[in-house]
Amino acid sequence: MDMQATLVRSEDNESLVNRLRQDPGAMLQRYQVVRAFTEELCSPLATEDYVVQTMQDVSPTKWHLAHTTWFFETFVLSKFDSSYEPFHPRYAYLFNSYYVQAGERHCRDKRGYLSRPTVEEVYRYREYVDDRMKSFLQRIGSSEWQEAAPVIEIGLHHEQQHQELILTDIKHVLSVNPLRPVYRERAVEPPSVSIPLDWVPFEAGLYDIGHDEEGFAYDNEGPRHKYWVDNFLLANRLVTNGEFMEFIRDGGYERPELWLSMGWATVEEKKWKEPFYWEPSRNEGDYVLFTLSGERAVDPNEPVCHVSYYEADAYARWAGARLPTEQEWEVAAQQIAIDGNFVEDGHFHPVPADPSRSATLHQMYGDVWEWTRSQYSPYPRYKPVEGALGEYNGKFMCNQFVLRGGSCATSRTHIRPTYRNFFPPESCWQFTGIRLARDV
Amino acid sequence: MDMQATLVRSEDNESLVNRLRQDPGAMLQRYQVVRAFTEELCSPLATEDYVVQTMQDVSPTKWHLAHTTWFFETFVLSKFDSSYEPFHPRYAYLFNSYYVQAGERHCRDKRGYLSRPTVEEVYRYREYVDDRMKSFLQRIGSSEWQEAAPVIEIGLHHEQQHQELILTDIKHVLSVNPLRPVYRERAVEPPSVSIPLDWVPFEAGLYDIGHDEEGFAYDNEGPRHKYWVDNFLLANRLVTNGEFMEFIRDGGYERPELWLSMGWATVEEKKWKEPFYWEPSRNEGDYVLFTLSGERAVDPNEPVCHVSYYEADAYARWAGARLPTEQEWEVAAQQIAIDGNFVEDGHFHPVPADPSRSATLHQMYGDVWEWTRSQYSPYPRYKPVEGALGEYNGKFMCNQFVLRGGSCATSRTHIRPTYRNFFPPESCWQFTGIRLARDV
Amino acid sequence: MDMQATLVRSEDNESLVNRLRQDPGAMLQRYQVVRAFTEELCSPLATEDYVVQTMQDVSPTKWHLAHTTWFFETFVLSKFDSSYEPFHPRYAYLFNSYYVQAGERHCRDKRGYLSRPTVEEVYRYREYVDDRMKSFLQRIGSSEWQEAAPVIEIGLHHEQQHQELILTDIKHVLSVNPLRPVYRERAVEPPSVSIPLDWVPFEAGLYDIGHDEEGFAYDNEGPRHKYWVDNFLLANRLVTNGEFMEFIRDGGYERPELWLSMGWATVEEKKWKEPFYWEPSRNEGDYVLFTLSGERAVDPNEPVCHVSYYEADAYARWAGARLPTEQEWEVAAQQIAIDGNFVEDGHFHPVPADPSRSATLHQMYGDVWEWTRSQYSPYPRYKPVEGALGEYNGKFMCNQFVLRGGSCATSRTHIRPTYRNFFPPESCWQFTGIRLARDV
Amino acid sequence: MDMQATLVRSEDNESLVNRLRQDPGAMLQRYQVVRAFTEELCSPLATEDYVVQTMQDVSPTKWHLAHTTWFFETFVLSKFDSSYEPFHPRYAYLFNSYYVQAGERHCRDKRGYLSRPTVEEVYRYREYVDDRMKSFLQRIGSSEWQEAAPVIEIGLHHEQQHQELILTDIKHVLSVNPLRPVYRERAVEPPSVSIPLDWVPFEAGLYDIGHDEEGFAYDNEGPRHKYWVDNFLLANRLVTNGEFMEFIRDGGYERPELWLSMGWATVEEKKWKEPFYWEPSRNEGDYVLFTLSGERAVDPNEPVCHVSYYEADAYARWAGARLPTEQEWEVAAQQIAIDGNFVEDGHFHPVPADPSRSATLHQMYGDVWEWTRSQYSPYPRYKPVEGALGEYNGKFMCNQFVLRGGSCATSRTHIRPTYRNFFPPESCWQFTGIRLARDV
Repeated sequence: MDMQATLVRSEDNESLVNRLRQDPGAMLQRYQVVRAFTEELCSPLATEDYVVQTMQDVSPTKWHLAHTTWFFETFVLSKFDSSYEPFHPRYAYLFNSYYVQAGERHCRDKRGYLSRPTVEEVYRYREYVDDRMKSFLQRIGSSEWQEAAPVIEIGLHHEQQHQELILTDIKHVLSVNPLRPVYRERAVEPPSVSIPLDWVPFEAGLYDIGHDEEGFAYDNEGPRHKYWVDNFLLANRLVTNGEFMEFIRDGGYERPELWLSMGWATVEEKKWKEPFYWEPSRNEGDYVLFTLSGERAVDPNEPVCHVSYYEADAYARWAGARLPTEQEWEVAAQQIAIDGNFVEDGHFHPVPADPSRSATLHQMYGDVWEWTRSQYSPYPRYKPVEGALGEYNGKFMCNQFVLRGGSCATSRTHIRPTYRNFFPPESCWQFTGIRLARDV
Repeated sequence: MDMQATLVRSEDNESLVNRLRQDPGAMLQRYQVVRAFTEELCSPLATEDYVVQTMQDVSPTKWHLAHTTWFFETFVLSKFDSSYEPFHPRYAYLFNSYYVQAGERHCRDKRGYLSRPTVEEVYRYREYVDDRMKSFLQRIGSSEWQEAAPVIEIGLHHEQQHQELILTDIKHVLSVNPLRPVYRERAVEPPSVSIPLDWVPFEAGLYDIGHDEEGFAYDNEGPRHKYWVDNFLLANRLVTNGEFMEFIRDGGYERPELWLSMGWATVEEKKWKEPFYWEPSRNEGDYVLFTLSGERAVDPNEPVCHVSYYEADAYARWAGARLPTEQEWEVAAQQIAIDGNFVEDGHFHPVPADPSRSATLHQMYGDVWEWTRSQYSPYPRYKPVEGALGEYNGKFMCNQFVLRGGSCATSRTHIRPTYRNFFPPESCWQFTGIRLARDV
Repeated sequence: MDMQATLVRSEDNESLVNRLRQDPGAMLQRYQVVRAFTEELCSPLATEDYVVQTMQDVSPTKWHLAHTTWFFETFVLSKFDSSYEPFHPRYAYLFNSYYVQAGERHCRDKRGYLSRPTVEEVYRYREYVDDRMKSFLQRIGSSEWQEAAPVIEIGLHHEQQHQELILTDIKHVLSVNPLRPVYRERAVEPPSVSIPLDWVPFEAGLYDIGHDEEGFAYDNEGPRHKYWVDNFLLANRLVTNGEFMEFIRDGGYERPELWLSMGWATVEEKKWKEPFYWEPSRNEGDYVLFTLSGERAVDPNEPVCHVSYYEADAYARWAGARLPTEQEWEVAAQQIAIDGNFVEDGHFHPVPADPSRSATLHQMYGDVWEWTRSQYSPYPRYKPVEGALGEYNGKFMCNQFVLRGGSCATSRTHIRPTYRNFFPPESCWQFTGIRLARDV
Repeated sequence: MDMQATLVRSEDNESLVNRLRQDPGAMLQRYQVVRAFTEELCSPLATEDYVVQTMQDVSPTKWHLAHTTWFFETFVLSKFDSSYEPFHPRYAYLFNSYYVQAGERHCRDKRGYLSRPTVEEVYRYREYVDDRMKSFLQRIGSSEWQEAAPVIEIGLHHEQQHQELILTDIKHVLSVNPLRPVYRERAVEPPSVSIPLDWVPFEAGLYDIGHDEEGFAYDNEGPRHKYWVDNFLLANRLVTNGEFMEFIRDGGYERPELWLSMGWATVEEKKWKEPFYWEPSRNEGDYVLFTLSGERAVDPNEPVCHVSYYEADAYARWAGARLPTEQEWEVAAQQIAIDGNFVEDGHFHPVPADPSRSATLHQMYGDVWEWTRSQYSPYPRYKPVEGALGEYNGKFMCNQFVLRGGSCATSRTHIRPTYRNFFPPESCWQFTGIRLARDV
């Protein structure tokens, strides 16, 4: 699967956005590319793989396929296309996720109970909506376009988020199966290399943080505002599996003084002894890990992945360092091109930092989402969008931590320096990792 | 689907059993008929329907298909056919249900997490084992036959039990789906009729209870033993929906004095207000119910179905009667031919008692399993079979109640007057109903 | 505490009952003796001990003191004494246990949340009701007496049941305290002796089972009815700690084939490795146990105690025997005088069988309640008493097993050969033990 | 109870601290005053009140009394007084709260299971430690003093925190009791008055936030650091019960769009319909509330109290405002004298803003802890204290929100402008309330 060819790579996100906003035809083309990529990601799956929900956080693949379609049906076609007839009267109920202002919805933790609609019916639903979107965009007038374009734009970013979730969720589904099915064989084995850990200094100052409204951003990335940041050091690369194994060997999972109180309670309750998807191998002290290409030995040079905030925080404390704040991360990222190991690269797993790349900061984008020490809060003067779409971000600003930079399951065109992802501190089924920071 | 034609009807169970025990060829033919009927029952399903587990009691259809196959693989082929190679090394782990002596097994409540093996692979597994069973039976020697025949016999009864479970489980899977899928349209609508409730007297005496070892029976049906039964009256038919609606209207679900203490706790915790699969209809005081042929209005003449022991017991108390003991039921059943509404009739739902049948007792077999007031205990001198098959029955003799007579999902060739089914008192996803008894 | 002196010993229960029924003065005296004994049992307690509830099954001592008083207030004084004024308007709500027909009640699992009424107030409540009962009985007319006498009789037996619960509950309260408080120092250490296990034969026959209505009995002990019992053997004494330790050493808690399915699930869930109140001692393979006289080494000659039905059943299976049915136990007990180690003996713990006693069956009464294999069901033609007192027994006939014979915490005047105690199979905080039976 | 007389009022906190740090005699006197006040707060309690734990957040009063004593025993006497012998060898286990570096500890949610030590023994324990502290402080050398003084200082603030918890916990204990006991009758009824809501403007700027190390502070209040604050408006007083009733009447508890996602889930799960300790009164639309002086009608002019973060946040959204950040609150508080309705005032409940006080901002200190929108995070360059005392604050920096200003249960000498209290967003058993803020 040469995914790189599928999506635009050469254009930067800001100019892409500007072009799309001015041209319904370009938007349609973009729509078709993004929607097709979702289906391309599903191509390795058996029908049965689309159905299963292995924990509450995980949704069945067919739900993702339908929910992203429901988004365009509900927020675009039903709003702006007066001739539109819904594909099925109950789908609005089945495939709403959490938009309370968009009506009642089926229980999240029971998505795996639904054998119908079948996968084939869901694909027909996609086809139906895609056809309607096409004819809608081909005949759209300019005043409708002003209103609809930003919603379609959100819909495409929403679809890209669910592309990432399809991968992380199907990884979980396959992982709990004793047969250990493979999503896709590893095409090329990246060399296992390493670069030394180094600390990059940043100067104190009153920085501008948040999105400047050029190009696309979610509402939670703004408004741009002043924020004082002290002098700090940021690690030049991600924490590796090898380093994390040192932490384990040093009793990291047995020493409560390294952990937040709730983190330690979680370690004890869930009996955590190593990162998620790791298992001790038959050789004492070694580990194997489950990937979308199957099970293999832990490579000490790869970034550690699938760690919770609690583990990231405990590791940092053990290492005599700390996690960066989201503002520190953004200050550093503002100076860096958006490049890295993304979903289009087809690894579906983080890879070691490349010593041949002459960069000050490695792996800032792609590979793994980087936990920050910042709890997810509104920026000053933050105002959610009006209506159901305003539920996208703001109502989750509680008991979650911010992650930055995207992962190997993120689309290159989906990430930005100001992008704020967020998960509860115990979450580890996403591709999440660690970059250290220190006070000067 | 003309299911009646599929299975032998004319031969009584005892002579069938004797014939099979003497002839491997007859046994093979029987094996093929029973196995084919399992697959016939699955023919209306979509691939996705095979995968889903909607509560712990429910297993995915593909699990039933594989587990019944595993039974023959484990207890017949692996034991008696030295040339046998298992189809897949991990299936023994995945498809063992609870036979601890047959090795480790996958968690019961996580059967719905397994997307693999696919449905197609499971059918290949069945085909593989069926082929091996065929060649094994075609060349079997007489000393092996002595040992293997009783196990195959159990295996076929085991498969018939799972045929019933496939129907009750898929009913639950379809029922929780807001799209309300239909398993099979109702072919013929039976007339809604009624016969008056009457009480049939039985004389006190020291009866012989339990199986006499002629023909097939599970170990828990014996040994045959003496049991004193007092004079009693038994209702001539099952309790109807109409009668049960009287109970509801009279506040049956709101009056703790009618209920066992644990029953009342269950009513309060689960907020029961009507039988399982019933819902209030738009007309005040009426109900609709979900069947394998979809949703329809409650027919007052049909037997009430999907009631728990708690509801059966409370109803009986409200009606000034009681449930029969299992010995009373068996005393009455000994005098009756095995006839009724079974799975082969293709209703997949209980039907009203037929006034044109001149019988003293109606509906004793088929339609619904009848709750007795007897808790499931070993008969005097009961000894479980040796080895893993000894786990079939004995180890569940705790906190369960005995049900008698089979249901509309039971095979005609599977039921006997001594047959003891058992479920916990809160269970209601089986086709379970009520026959009243009284002291004289 | 010379408890023996406190209660009548020389009179048999039947003649005691007859005498009380004829004489309000004798009943009053009896009332005062029983009520005083309750308070005598509480005399070793600190105020704080009366308040605590350490699990749902356990009630605070002050609740027991008040609830038994509420019984007389509600079912005697409020019913029969028109001049009676309740001590406090809210006590009816606080101290009703489960009599739904007697009105609403405070949540059982929150009894430990009530700091008020204080212990002193509860004793005042007792005094108040005792005074009113005294003057009521002193002036009672004969028609009232006919109605009230049976209720007072039940109230006294009810109080005796709660005397036993006070001891078992306070044992639990003290046991969870790391300070390991002692209820009462062991006065005399009984000699640690043993008698050999022997099997006593009983003949098959159609026996009369249940109470004959001479003397007092609960409604669940009748009506007397015929029951066929096969030949059987009954062990001449209880299973000892030493024998139970053999079971443990032989892997008894690690072998699922010895257990009922629900029993094994309980072993795994609760991580049972030895009987309740036992702990491994520092010497490998030995155990200490907690008693009302504190912690001490397990005496191999004492009856094993605080075992659940699951453990009793698994032990019997391991020993190549089984538990008796309740009818078998009653057949054997009909021939035996009511003697044994009761609460009045002041041991508060079972003692070894006495080799100097020339008896065929030892320890049938007192020491420990003996689990039978009989699930708790109504006898034929059983009718509960009318009204709230009818909730005493019948509504618990589900998911419980019958125990017979009383324990070291039972009053000598409280037990009978027909007495049916019952607890769920996982219960072990009562003084419960094992007597084996076998088929011939 | 004239509590005002008990504690120093005239001296400001900073000079008090300085004086104590220089003089062991003054420290001893202070120690005795604080310790005596704890016992004074307990004086209205019955013995039984000290024992009960009504939910996990609540600790029994006797546990508070012992735990605060354990603090001095463990961190002062055992560390600095080589002749010290612990009062009881198991108390270290029983009365450690969460200091993992100070050894194992008894389960938090089982504190209510301990009837022993008795209340009297706990008071003896206090006396014993107080005696040892006295003689230790009377003979202390100057080098020990340097080390010990800061720990004693923390111990006294720790004791004051537990004084507040004693009140909030005993309020809960009394409230769940259907007898509705009163802690202390309301001495004086404060007039029910009101002042109009007004908005006080503050200017944007780069402020210094956090403690400047003059006087006492917890480690989490520092280090002092720069923080940019935008222009904002702060309400001149707390939100009142009357205003909150408007929110309820406007469907506040039924409109998911007003709530954080986790807040709405909590509303649904716990069926919240009004603030904690409120109940609908018999007059439709009115409410009664439970206070430490018993139950009474809700006074519309009193500050709303016992609201969770979720309710505070939803109320603010409904009111078209928001909660302040903790930095905004601190900017405003820096200009205000520490005055208000504290525990020494003996109201044990918030009181209406006093219109006769000519202040810009009312009720900033005392009355109720004010929820801020700031999640509890470390300040830049925050370093916890070394050793077990470092567990005091830092390890809770996750899933909690910051509250500011103290309450009617807080000691006047315990509060500071930089003081950061923190609770999970669903907590409501503390005296917690709402002050609004707005963007300009």
